[in-house]
Amino acid sequence: MSNEAPSARTRLKRAPERGAYDRQTIDAILDEGLICHVAFATDSRPAMIPTIYARVGDHVYLHGAVANRTLRALADGLEACFCVSHVDGIVIARSAFHHSINYRSVILYGIAELVSDEAERMLALRALVEHVVPERWPDVRAPNEQEMKRTAVLRMTLDEVSAKVRTGPPIDDEDDYALDTWAGVIPVRTAFGAPIQDPRLTSGIDPPPYVAAYARPPASPTGVD
Amino acid sequence: MSNEAPSARTRLKRAPERGAYDRQTIDAILDEGLICHVAFATDSRPAMIPTIYARVGDHVYLHGAVANRTLRALADGLEACFCVSHVDGIVIARSAFHHSINYRSVILYGIAELVSDEAERMLALRALVEHVVPERWPDVRAPNEQEMKRTAVLRMTLDEVSAKVRTGPPIDDEDDYALDTWAGVIPVRTAFGAPIQDPRLTSGIDPPPYVAAYARPPASPTGVD
Repeated sequence: MSNEAPSARTRLKRAPERGAYDRQTIDAILDEGLICHVAFATDSRPAMIPTIYARVGDHVYLHGAVANRTLRALADGLEACFCVSHVDGIVIARSAFHHSINYRSVILYGIAELVSDEAERMLALRALVEHVVPERWPDVRAPNEQEMKRTAVLRMTLDEVSAKVRTGPPIDDEDDYALDTWAGVIPVRTAFGAPIQDPRLTSGIDPPPYVAAYARPPASPTGVD
Repeated sequence: MSNEAPSARTRLKRAPERGAYDRQTIDAILDEGLICHVAFATDSRPAMIPTIYARVGDHVYLHGAVANRTLRALADGLEACFCVSHVDGIVIARSAFHHSINYRSVILYGIAELVSDEAERMLALRALVEHVVPERWPDVRAPNEQEMKRTAVLRMTLDEVSAKVRTGPPIDDEDDYALDTWAGVIPVRTAFGAPIQDPRLTSGIDPPPYVAAYARPPASPTGVD
């Protein structure tokens, strides 16, 4: 477990104590998230999409329609910047200046490679489904040839990657602790409601345990090396 | 209320029925979110930060330390891409291919301007605090001269902006509806826990109503025109 930044641009310059470069911290943030944001640029004009992803070992996989502009641009070997962020708390300080957010985020820089090996593509699609809904794959109709043709799968390597984490109470200026105003943290989490069945569901099919007891981080994490 | 895309790059090419270009939809997504992701590029190398923001009328404001690399780059007049995303549901289909996410997202392209007018800077800082914690400003110690000097405020105009929304059950291939597998949606929402007071809080200070009954979207929205 290393706590050295892998490159200059991944090293935190502001608030360096919030930086983490160990894979245990990074993988936990990635495996809990539902969506990522991926940015790229053509002629220094940036673009970004929110999308789903999955970690498998030392890679994150992305997918989309072959005709998708973003995926096409990335598959051409452009540099990408990938980010997953969790908001964990609203930090309410005594001064406006020290209001903050408790969060965990991962930033990954790199080139997204188009995956062409059919076996790896299928494994990636399974990982993408099971990143969001662990244990789902055996119960679905698998991708057919036409769906595989329409789907581009990309991967980025967890190489130039870093995490940033803020936890705990507000940190106010020493003089401000005497002020007569409430300070503290409102915890924030992602909550999951009771499953709503598809109106067209055949009667008598109950939600499987992985749906009825859905939770994140998943009880049986995917993406294990 | 218009449903015309303001530019070619904001017009949805894939799944155009999910696009929305009216400000009512866009503003509701912006006002509910806690954080945004902002991307920019230098020499076609993309970078991105998750950060807080606030909408005031036709602008979104961003802020950060004057020394912050991202803020400095943006203040130099680089193009930025700003995104706010909400995950509303996990869409579980009968086929792997039709698994999806219910979401609401806004993408804004433009140049971030450095705000230099001191009155607008102060209003923006108030909006940034009250975007996250409505009604908070009168209870805090306001920014002092030194804090104002250390803080850069940027704004982007809600001009080249679009929303994308997916709602509802899975849409499976017609043949797959006969399959004997559960399908539907797991609702996802952001939940707020009971406030945790700062260990250094002076005894006898109760959380104000805007903390004790915290909710999003806020009961009294900020950012109203």
